[in-house]
Amino acid sequence: MSASETPTGPGLPELQRRLAEFAARRDWEPFHTPKNLAAALSVEASELLEIFQWLTAEESRDVMRDPGSAHRVRDEVADVLAYLLQFCEVLGIDVLAALEAKIERNEERFPVEEPGA
Amino acid sequence: MSASETPTGPGLPELQRRLAEFAARRDWEPFHTPKNLAAALSVEASELLEIFQWLTAEESRDVMRDPGSAHRVRDEVADVLAYLLQFCEVLGIDVLAALEAKIERNEERFPVEEPGA
Amino acid sequence: MSASETPTGPGLPELQRRLAEFAARRDWEPFHTPKNLAAALSVEASELLEIFQWLTAEESRDVMRDPGSAHRVRDEVADVLAYLLQFCEVLGIDVLAALEAKIERNEERFPVEEPGA
Amino acid sequence: MSASETPTGPGLPELQRRLAEFAARRDWEPFHTPKNLAAALSVEASELLEIFQWLTAEESRDVMRDPGSAHRVRDEVADVLAYLLQFCEVLGIDVLAALEAKIERNEERFPVEEPGA
Repeated sequence: MSASETPTGPGLPELQRRLAEFAARRDWEPFHTPKNLAAALSVEASELLEIFQWLTAEESRDVMRDPGSAHRVRDEVADVLAYLLQFCEVLGIDVLAALEAKIERNEERFPVEEPGA
Repeated sequence: MSASETPTGPGLPELQRRLAEFAARRDWEPFHTPKNLAAALSVEASELLEIFQWLTAEESRDVMRDPGSAHRVRDEVADVLAYLLQFCEVLGIDVLAALEAKIERNEERFPVEEPGA
Repeated sequence: MSASETPTGPGLPELQRRLAEFAARRDWEPFHTPKNLAAALSVEASELLEIFQWLTAEESRDVMRDPGSAHRVRDEVADVLAYLLQFCEVLGIDVLAALEAKIERNEERFPVEEPGA
Repeated sequence: MSASETPTGPGLPELQRRLAEFAARRDWEPFHTPKNLAAALSVEASELLEIFQWLTAEESRDVMRDPGSAHRVRDEVADVLAYLLQFCEVLGIDVLAALEAKIERNEERFPVEEPGA
Protein backbone atom coordinates (compact mmCIF):
# COMPACT_ATOMS: atom_id res chain seq x y z
CA MET A 1 0.00 0.00 0.00
CA SER A 2 1.49 3.27 -1.11
CA ALA A 3 0.64 5.18 2.05
CA SER A 4 2.96 3.07 4.13
CA GLU A 5 5.95 3.52 1.83
CA THR A 6 8.55 6.18 2.38
CA PRO A 7 7.82 8.91 -0.15
CA THR A 8 10.79 9.57 -2.39
CA GLY A 9 9.33 11.98 -4.95
CA PRO A 10 8.07 15.53 -4.61
CA GLY A 11 5.41 16.31 -2.02
CA LEU A 12 2.06 18.00 -2.49
CA PRO A 13 3.24 21.63 -2.08
CA GLU A 14 5.97 21.18 -4.70
CA LEU A 15 3.53 19.60 -7.19
CA GLN A 16 1.08 22.46 -6.55
CA ARG A 17 3.86 24.94 -7.39
CA ARG A 18 4.77 23.07 -10.57
CA LEU A 19 1.13 23.09 -11.69
CA ALA A 20 0.91 26.84 -11.07
CA GLU A 21 4.06 27.47 -13.09
CA PHE A 22 2.81 25.14 -15.82
CA ALA A 23 -0.40 27.17 -16.21
CA ALA A 24 1.38 30.54 -15.95
CA ARG A 25 3.91 29.69 -18.68
CA ARG A 26 1.08 28.72 -21.04
CA ASP A 27 -1.03 31.82 -20.26
CA TRP A 28 -3.88 29.60 -19.03
CA GLU A 29 -4.51 31.72 -15.94
CA PRO A 30 -7.46 33.67 -17.43
CA PHE A 31 -9.28 30.36 -17.87
CA HIS A 32 -8.48 29.22 -14.35
CA THR A 33 -11.30 30.93 -12.51
CA PRO A 34 -12.47 29.06 -9.40
CA LYS A 35 -15.76 28.35 -11.18
CA ASN A 36 -14.05 26.81 -14.24
CA LEU A 37 -11.64 24.78 -12.12
CA ALA A 38 -14.51 23.44 -9.99
CA ALA A 39 -16.28 22.39 -13.20
CA ALA A 40 -13.10 20.76 -14.57
CA LEU A 41 -12.54 18.92 -11.27
CA SER A 42 -16.09 17.59 -11.40
CA VAL A 43 -15.66 16.50 -15.02
CA GLU A 44 -12.43 14.62 -14.22
CA ALA A 45 -14.02 12.91 -11.21
CA SER A 46 -16.78 11.71 -13.55
CA GLU A 47 -14.20 10.39 -16.01
CA LEU A 48 -12.81 8.30 -13.17
CA LEU A 49 -16.31 7.07 -12.29
CA GLU A 50 -16.93 6.20 -15.95
CA ILE A 51 -14.31 3.43 -15.68
CA PHE A 52 -16.41 1.77 -12.96
CA GLN A 53 -19.97 2.49 -14.02
CA TRP A 54 -20.82 -0.97 -15.40
CA LEU A 55 -18.53 -3.00 -13.12
CA THR A 56 -19.74 -5.01 -10.15
CA ALA A 57 -18.30 -4.17 -6.74
CA GLU A 58 -16.05 -7.21 -7.05
CA GLU A 59 -14.83 -6.35 -10.55
CA SER A 60 -14.05 -2.83 -9.36
CA ARG A 61 -11.55 -4.25 -6.84
CA ASP A 62 -9.55 -5.87 -9.67
CA VAL A 63 -9.31 -2.85 -11.92
CA MET A 64 -5.54 -2.43 -11.47
CA ARG A 65 -4.78 -5.95 -12.72
CA ASP A 66 -5.22 -4.95 -16.35
CA PRO A 67 -2.35 -2.63 -17.38
CA GLY A 68 -4.55 -0.59 -19.70
CA SER A 69 -7.23 0.15 -17.15
CA ALA A 70 -4.59 0.64 -14.42
CA HIS A 71 -2.99 3.36 -16.53
CA ARG A 72 -6.37 4.96 -17.18
CA VAL A 73 -7.22 4.97 -13.47
CA ARG A 74 -3.86 6.53 -12.51
CA ASP A 75 -4.28 9.12 -15.23
CA GLU A 76 -7.75 10.19 -14.04
CA VAL A 77 -6.62 10.21 -10.39
CA ALA A 78 -3.79 12.56 -11.40
CA ASP A 79 -6.22 14.83 -13.26
CA VAL A 80 -8.53 15.05 -10.25
CA LEU A 81 -5.65 15.96 -7.93
CA ALA A 82 -4.24 18.42 -10.48
CA TYR A 83 -7.48 20.37 -10.74
CA LEU A 84 -8.04 20.21 -6.98
CA LEU A 85 -4.59 21.72 -6.38
CA GLN A 86 -5.07 24.39 -9.04
CA PHE A 87 -8.44 25.27 -7.51
CA CYS A 88 -6.83 25.58 -4.07
CA GLU A 89 -3.97 27.62 -5.54
CA VAL A 90 -6.21 30.31 -7.05
CA LEU A 91 -8.25 30.62 -3.85
CA GLY A 92 -5.29 30.41 -1.43
CA ILE A 93 -6.63 27.27 0.30
CA ASP A 94 -4.24 24.99 2.21
CA VAL A 95 -5.79 21.67 1.19
CA LEU A 96 -3.84 19.57 3.71
CA ALA A 97 -4.92 21.82 6.58
CA ALA A 98 -8.52 21.68 5.29
CA LEU A 99 -8.42 17.88 5.28
CA GLU A 100 -6.83 17.67 8.73
CA ALA A 101 -9.55 19.94 10.14
CA LYS A 102 -12.23 17.83 8.46
CA ILE A 103 -10.83 14.58 9.86
CA GLU A 104 -10.89 16.10 13.34
CA ARG A 105 -14.51 17.22 12.91
CA ASN A 106 -15.45 13.76 11.65
CA GLU A 107 -13.78 12.07 14.62
CA GLU A 108 -16.19 13.98 16.86
CA ARG A 109 -19.15 13.47 14.54
CA PHE A 110 -18.73 9.70 14.17
CA PRO A 111 -17.48 8.44 17.54
CA VAL A 112 -16.21 4.85 17.54
CA GLU A 113 -18.33 2.42 19.50
CA GLU A 114 -15.72 0.71 21.64
CA PRO A 115 -16.47 -2.94 22.43
CA GLY A 116 -17.79 -3.26 25.98
CA ALA A 117 -18.30 0.49 26.31
CA MET B 1 -0.61 31.51 -1.36
CA SER B 2 -0.59 28.33 0.66
CA ALA B 3 1.76 26.45 -1.64
CA SER B 4 4.62 28.81 -0.88
CA GLU B 5 4.29 28.48 2.88
CA THR B 6 6.34 26.02 4.88
CA PRO B 7 3.99 23.15 5.74
CA THR B 8 3.75 22.63 9.46
CA GLY B 9 0.96 20.05 9.69
CA PRO B 10 0.84 16.42 8.58
CA GLY B 11 1.63 15.58 4.96
CA LEU B 12 -0.47 13.65 2.45
CA PRO B 13 0.77 10.13 3.36
CA GLU B 14 0.00 10.65 7.05
CA LEU B 15 -3.50 11.97 6.29
CA GLN B 16 -4.11 9.00 4.00
CA ARG B 17 -3.14 6.66 6.87
CA ARG B 18 -5.46 8.47 9.28
CA LEU B 19 -8.35 8.17 6.82
CA ALA B 20 -7.71 4.44 6.43
CA GLU B 21 -7.66 3.94 10.20
CA PHE B 22 -10.79 6.08 10.54
CA ALA B 23 -12.71 3.84 8.13
CA ALA B 24 -11.31 0.61 9.60
CA ARG B 25 -12.30 1.51 13.18
CA ARG B 26 -15.87 2.21 12.04
CA ASP B 27 -16.14 -0.99 9.94
CA TRP B 28 -16.79 1.07 6.82
CA GLU B 29 -14.38 -0.96 4.68
CA PRO B 30 -17.08 -3.17 3.09
CA PHE B 31 -18.67 -0.01 1.67
CA HIS B 32 -15.35 1.31 0.41
CA THR B 33 -15.19 -0.51 -2.90
CA PRO B 34 -13.34 1.39 -5.63
CA LYS B 35 -16.65 1.80 -7.44
CA ASN B 36 -18.39 3.34 -4.44
CA LEU B 37 -15.47 5.61 -3.62
CA ALA B 38 -15.29 6.83 -7.23
CA ALA B 39 -19.02 7.65 -7.02
CA ALA B 40 -18.57 9.44 -3.68
CA LEU B 41 -15.62 11.42 -5.05
CA SER B 42 -17.72 12.51 -8.01
CA VAL B 43 -20.61 13.49 -5.73
CA GLU B 44 -18.33 15.61 -3.53
CA ALA B 45 -16.76 17.32 -6.55
CA SER B 46 -20.29 18.24 -7.64
CA GLU B 47 -21.07 19.64 -4.21
CA LEU B 48 -18.06 21.92 -4.64
CA LEU B 49 -19.29 22.94 -8.10
CA GLU B 50 -22.76 23.63 -6.68
CA ILE B 51 -21.32 26.58 -4.73
CA PHE B 52 -20.25 28.19 -8.02
CA GLN B 53 -23.03 27.19 -10.41
CA TRP B 54 -24.88 30.54 -10.51
CA LEU B 55 -21.87 32.81 -9.88
CA THR B 56 -20.15 34.83 -12.58
CA ALA B 57 -16.44 34.22 -13.17
CA GLU B 58 -15.70 37.41 -11.22
CA GLU B 59 -17.94 36.50 -8.29
CA SER B 60 -16.28 33.09 -8.14
CA ARG B 61 -12.91 34.76 -7.46
CA ASP B 62 -14.32 36.40 -4.30
CA VAL B 63 -15.88 33.32 -2.77
CA MET B 64 -13.46 33.17 0.16
CA ARG B 65 -14.33 36.70 1.36
CA ASP B 66 -17.55 35.53 2.97
CA PRO B 67 -16.71 33.37 6.02
CA GLY B 68 -19.71 31.11 5.51
CA SER B 69 -18.96 30.28 1.89
CA ALA B 70 -15.22 30.06 2.65
CA HIS B 71 -15.96 27.38 5.25
CA ARG B 72 -18.21 25.53 2.81
CA VAL B 73 -15.55 25.61 0.09
CA ARG B 74 -12.83 24.31 2.45
CA ASP B 75 -15.18 21.60 3.66
CA GLU B 76 -15.96 20.35 0.15
CA VAL B 77 -12.29 20.55 -0.86
CA ALA B 78 -11.46 18.35 2.14
CA ASP B 79 -14.18 15.86 1.18
CA VAL B 80 -12.87 15.60 -2.38
CA LEU B 81 -9.32 14.96 -1.17
CA ALA B 82 -10.54 12.52 1.48
CA TYR B 83 -12.36 10.33 -1.04
CA LEU B 84 -9.52 10.60 -3.54
CA LEU B 85 -7.05 9.34 -0.90
CA GLN B 86 -9.38 6.55 0.21
CA PHE B 87 -9.83 5.51 -3.41
CA CYS B 88 -6.05 5.44 -3.89
CA GLU B 89 -5.63 3.54 -0.62
CA VAL B 90 -7.92 0.65 -1.59
CA LEU B 91 -6.29 0.32 -5.03
CA GLY B 92 -2.69 0.83 -3.86
CA ILE B 93 -2.15 3.91 -6.02
CA ASP B 94 0.58 6.42 -5.13
CA VAL B 95 -1.32 9.59 -6.00
CA LEU B 96 1.69 11.91 -5.80
CA ALA B 97 3.68 9.69 -8.18
CA ALA B 98 0.66 9.55 -10.51
CA LEU B 99 0.44 13.34 -10.55
CA GLU B 100 4.17 13.78 -11.10
CA ALA B 101 4.06 11.38 -14.06
CA LYS B 102 1.06 13.25 -15.48
CA ILE B 103 2.78 16.64 -15.18
CA GLU B 104 5.77 15.23 -17.06
CA ARG B 105 3.53 13.86 -19.83
CA ASN B 106 1.74 17.21 -20.06
CA GLU B 107 5.02 19.11 -20.33
CA GLU B 108 5.73 17.11 -23.49
CA ARG B 109 2.17 17.34 -24.75
CA PHE B 110 1.83 21.12 -24.34
CA PRO B 111 5.26 22.59 -25.14
CA VAL B 112 5.71 26.23 -24.20
CA GLU B 113 6.10 28.58 -27.13
CA GLU B 114 9.22 30.49 -26.15
CA PRO B 115 9.31 34.12 -27.28
CA GLY B 116 11.57 34.50 -30.30
CA ALA B 117 11.74 30.75 -30.90
CA MET C 1 -44.20 0.33 -15.63
CA SER C 2 -44.95 3.96 -16.33
CA ALA C 3 -43.97 3.81 -20.00
CA SER C 4 -46.82 1.47 -20.83
CA GLU C 5 -49.50 3.57 -19.18
CA THR C 6 -51.59 6.05 -21.10
CA PRO C 7 -50.23 9.47 -20.24
CA THR C 8 -52.89 11.73 -18.81
CA GLY C 9 -50.87 14.74 -17.71
CA PRO C 10 -48.99 17.35 -19.70
CA GLY C 11 -46.36 16.22 -22.20
CA LEU C 12 -42.72 17.25 -22.45
CA PRO C 13 -43.23 20.35 -24.68
CA GLU C 14 -45.84 21.78 -22.31
CA LEU C 15 -43.64 21.21 -19.25
CA GLN C 16 -40.71 22.86 -21.09
CA ARG C 17 -42.92 25.91 -21.75
CA ARG C 18 -44.01 26.06 -18.11
CA LEU C 19 -40.39 25.95 -16.95
CA ALA C 20 -39.47 28.78 -19.34
CA GLU C 21 -42.35 30.92 -18.05
CA PHE C 22 -41.42 30.06 -14.47
CA ALA C 23 -37.87 31.36 -14.96
CA ALA C 24 -38.98 34.42 -16.95
CA ARG C 25 -41.48 35.55 -14.31
CA ARG C 26 -38.78 35.33 -11.62
CA ASP C 27 -36.15 37.19 -13.72
CA TRP C 28 -33.85 34.16 -13.54
CA GLU C 29 -32.99 34.30 -17.25
CA PRO C 30 -29.65 36.13 -16.77
CA PHE C 31 -28.47 33.18 -14.65
CA HIS C 32 -29.66 30.63 -17.17
CA THR C 33 -26.65 30.63 -19.47
CA PRO C 34 -26.01 27.29 -21.18
CA LYS C 35 -22.83 26.96 -19.13
CA ASN C 36 -24.65 27.48 -15.81
CA LEU C 37 -27.51 25.18 -16.76
CA ALA C 38 -25.06 22.43 -17.79
CA ALA C 39 -23.37 22.79 -14.39
CA ALA C 40 -26.72 22.69 -12.57
CA LEU C 41 -27.79 19.61 -14.55
CA SER C 42 -24.56 17.87 -13.60
CA VAL C 43 -25.01 18.82 -9.93
CA GLU C 44 -28.56 17.45 -9.87
CA ALA C 45 -27.48 14.20 -11.55
CA SER C 46 -24.89 13.82 -8.78
CA GLU C 47 -27.54 14.41 -6.13
CA LEU C 48 -29.45 11.49 -7.64
CA LEU C 49 -26.29 9.36 -7.61
CA GLU C 50 -25.66 10.30 -3.97
CA ILE C 51 -28.77 8.33 -2.97
CA PHE C 52 -27.17 5.17 -4.40
CA GLN C 53 -23.48 5.63 -3.65
CA TRP C 54 -23.24 3.22 -0.69
CA LEU C 55 -25.99 0.80 -1.78
CA THR C 56 -25.34 -2.59 -3.30
CA ALA C 57 -26.76 -3.29 -6.74
CA GLU C 58 -29.54 -5.30 -5.07
CA GLU C 59 -30.39 -2.60 -2.54
CA SER C 60 -30.55 -0.06 -5.35
CA ARG C 61 -33.40 -2.04 -6.97
CA ASP C 62 -35.52 -1.64 -3.81
CA VAL C 63 -35.06 2.09 -3.37
CA MET C 64 -38.70 2.94 -4.16
CA ARG C 65 -40.06 0.73 -1.36
CA ASP C 66 -39.24 3.28 1.31
CA PRO C 67 -41.57 6.31 0.90
CA GLY C 68 -38.88 8.75 2.01
CA SER C 69 -36.25 7.62 -0.44
CA ALA C 70 -38.89 7.19 -3.18
CA HIS C 71 -39.85 10.83 -2.76
CA ARG C 72 -36.19 11.88 -2.84
CA VAL C 73 -35.54 9.88 -6.03
CA ARG C 74 -38.59 11.36 -7.79
CA ASP C 75 -37.54 14.83 -6.68
CA GLU C 76 -34.01 14.48 -8.08
CA VAL C 77 -35.29 12.91 -11.31
CA ALA C 78 -37.56 15.93 -11.74
CA ASP C 79 -34.66 18.32 -11.13
CA VAL C 80 -32.51 16.58 -13.74
CA LEU C 81 -35.28 16.75 -16.34
CA ALA C 82 -36.06 20.37 -15.41
CA TYR C 83 -32.50 21.53 -15.99
CA LEU C 84 -32.18 19.43 -19.14
CA LEU C 85 -35.30 21.08 -20.58
CA GLN C 86 -34.18 24.56 -19.57
CA PHE C 87 -30.79 23.91 -21.16
CA CYS C 88 -32.49 22.77 -24.38
CA GLU C 89 -34.84 25.77 -24.26
CA VAL C 90 -32.05 28.37 -24.17
CA LEU C 91 -30.15 26.67 -27.00
CA GLY C 92 -33.20 25.84 -29.14
CA ILE C 93 -32.59 22.09 -29.02
CA ASP C 94 -35.46 19.64 -29.67
CA VAL C 95 -34.52 17.04 -27.07
CA LEU C 96 -36.96 14.38 -28.31
CA ALA C 97 -35.61 14.66 -31.86
CA ALA C 98 -32.05 14.50 -30.49
CA LEU C 99 -32.88 11.31 -28.60
CA GLU C 100 -34.65 9.72 -31.57
CA ALA C 101 -31.61 10.44 -33.76
CA LYS C 102 -29.30 8.97 -31.13
CA ILE C 103 -31.36 5.78 -30.80
CA GLU C 104 -31.19 5.34 -34.57
CA ARG C 105 -27.41 5.82 -34.56
CA ASN C 106 -27.08 3.33 -31.70
CA GLU C 107 -29.19 0.74 -33.53
CA GLU C 108 -26.58 0.80 -36.29
CA ARG C 109 -23.65 0.93 -33.88
CA PHE C 110 -24.76 -1.99 -31.71
CA PRO C 111 -26.42 -4.48 -34.06
CA VAL C 112 -28.34 -7.28 -32.38
CA GLU C 113 -26.86 -10.74 -32.80
CA GLU C 114 -29.85 -12.72 -33.97
CA PRO C 115 -29.97 -16.35 -32.83
CA GLY C 116 -28.91 -18.66 -35.64
CA ALA C 117 -27.53 -15.79 -37.69
CA MET D 1 -37.64 27.57 -30.08
CA SER D 2 -38.43 23.89 -30.20
CA ALA D 3 -40.92 23.96 -27.34
CA SER D 4 -43.34 26.10 -29.30
CA GLU D 5 -43.30 23.88 -32.39
CA THR D 6 -45.85 21.20 -32.99
CA PRO D 7 -44.11 17.92 -32.21
CA THR D 8 -44.14 15.58 -35.15
CA GLY D 9 -41.91 12.76 -33.94
CA PRO D 10 -42.39 10.20 -31.19
CA GLY D 11 -43.15 11.41 -27.66
CA LEU D 12 -41.34 10.63 -24.45
CA PRO D 13 -43.26 7.43 -23.55
CA GLU D 14 -42.59 5.90 -26.97
CA LEU D 15 -38.87 6.74 -26.78
CA GLN D 16 -38.72 5.23 -23.29
CA ARG D 17 -40.26 2.02 -24.66
CA ARG D 18 -37.77 1.92 -27.55
CA LEU D 19 -34.87 2.32 -25.13
CA ALA D 20 -36.20 -0.51 -22.96
CA GLU D 21 -36.52 -2.80 -25.99
CA PHE D 22 -33.07 -1.74 -27.18
CA ALA D 23 -31.49 -2.82 -23.89
CA ALA D 24 -33.56 -6.01 -23.63
CA ARG D 25 -32.60 -7.22 -27.12
CA ARG D 26 -28.90 -6.73 -26.31
CA ASP D 27 -29.15 -8.45 -22.89
CA TRP D 28 -27.96 -5.30 -21.16
CA GLU D 29 -30.59 -5.50 -18.43
CA PRO D 30 -28.28 -7.08 -15.82
CA PHE D 31 -26.05 -4.00 -16.09
CA HIS D 32 -28.99 -1.63 -15.83
CA THR D 33 -29.32 -1.51 -12.04
CA PRO D 34 -30.64 1.81 -10.71
CA LYS D 35 -27.21 2.42 -9.18
CA ASN D 36 -25.36 1.91 -12.46
CA LEU D 37 -27.85 3.98 -14.45
CA ALA D 38 -27.59 6.84 -11.93
CA ALA D 39 -23.80 6.71 -12.33
CA ALA D 40 -24.07 6.66 -16.13
CA LEU D 41 -26.52 9.59 -16.07
CA SER D 42 -24.10 11.57 -13.95
CA VAL D 43 -21.19 10.73 -16.26
CA GLU D 44 -23.14 11.86 -19.33
CA ALA D 45 -24.20 15.11 -17.64
CA SER D 46 -20.50 15.77 -16.96
CA GLU D 47 -19.66 15.09 -20.61
CA LEU D 48 -22.15 17.82 -21.50
CA LEU D 49 -20.57 20.16 -18.94
CA GLU D 50 -17.11 19.39 -20.35
CA ILE D 51 -18.07 21.19 -23.57
CA PHE D 52 -18.63 24.39 -21.57
CA GLN D 53 -15.97 24.21 -18.86
CA TRP D 54 -13.52 26.74 -20.33
CA LEU D 55 -16.08 28.92 -22.15
CA THR D 56 -17.24 32.31 -20.90
CA ALA D 57 -20.95 32.79 -20.26
CA GLU D 58 -21.18 34.67 -23.57
CA GLU D 59 -19.32 32.01 -25.55
CA SER D 60 -21.59 29.36 -24.08
CA ARG D 61 -24.60 31.08 -25.68
CA ASP D 62 -23.07 30.64 -29.16
CA VAL D 63 -22.21 26.98 -28.86
CA MET D 64 -24.76 25.85 -31.47
CA ARG D 65 -23.28 28.08 -34.20
CA ASP D 66 -20.43 25.67 -34.86
CA PRO D 67 -21.83 22.50 -36.49
CA GLY D 68 -19.28 20.29 -34.75
CA SER D 69 -20.00 21.50 -31.25
CA ALA D 70 -23.75 21.65 -31.99
CA HIS D 71 -23.66 17.95 -32.89
CA ARG D 72 -21.70 17.17 -29.75
CA VAL D 73 -24.16 19.08 -27.56
CA ARG D 74 -27.19 17.32 -29.12
CA ASP D 75 -25.45 13.98 -28.70
CA GLU D 76 -24.75 14.52 -25.00
CA VAL D 77 -28.25 15.87 -24.37
CA ALA D 78 -29.65 12.70 -25.95
CA ASP D 79 -27.40 10.53 -23.75
CA VAL D 80 -28.56 12.33 -20.59
CA LEU D 81 -32.23 11.86 -21.51
CA ALA D 82 -31.62 8.24 -22.53
CA TYR D 83 -30.12 7.29 -19.18
CA LEU D 84 -32.74 9.29 -17.28
CA LEU D 85 -35.52 7.39 -19.08
CA GLN D 86 -33.83 4.03 -18.54
CA PHE D 87 -33.39 4.85 -14.86
CA CYS D 88 -37.09 5.75 -14.60
CA GLU D 89 -38.04 2.61 -16.52
CA VAL D 90 -36.30 0.20 -14.12
CA LEU D 91 -37.78 1.93 -11.07
CA GLY D 92 -41.28 2.46 -12.52
CA ILE D 93 -41.10 6.26 -12.20
CA ASP D 94 -43.35 8.46 -14.36
CA VAL D 95 -40.83 11.21 -15.08
CA LEU D 96 -43.36 13.66 -16.56
CA ALA D 97 -45.60 13.34 -13.50
CA ALA D 98 -42.55 13.79 -11.24
CA LEU D 99 -41.62 16.99 -13.08
CA GLU D 100 -45.16 18.33 -13.02
CA ALA D 101 -45.35 17.76 -9.25
CA LYS D 102 -42.00 19.47 -8.80
CA ILE D 103 -43.05 22.52 -10.82
CA GLU D 104 -46.14 22.83 -8.65
CA ARG D 105 -44.08 22.61 -5.46
CA ASN D 106 -41.67 25.22 -6.82
CA GLU D 107 -44.52 27.59 -7.69
CA GLU D 108 -45.43 27.60 -4.00
CA ARG D 109 -41.82 27.74 -2.84
CA PHE D 110 -40.80 30.67 -5.03
CA PRO D 111 -43.83 32.97 -5.25
CA VAL D 112 -43.61 35.68 -7.90
CA GLU D 113 -43.41 39.20 -6.51
CA GLU D 114 -46.12 40.94 -8.46
CA PRO D 115 -45.45 44.61 -9.21
CA GLY D 116 -47.48 46.83 -6.89
CA ALA D 117 -48.41 43.93 -4.63
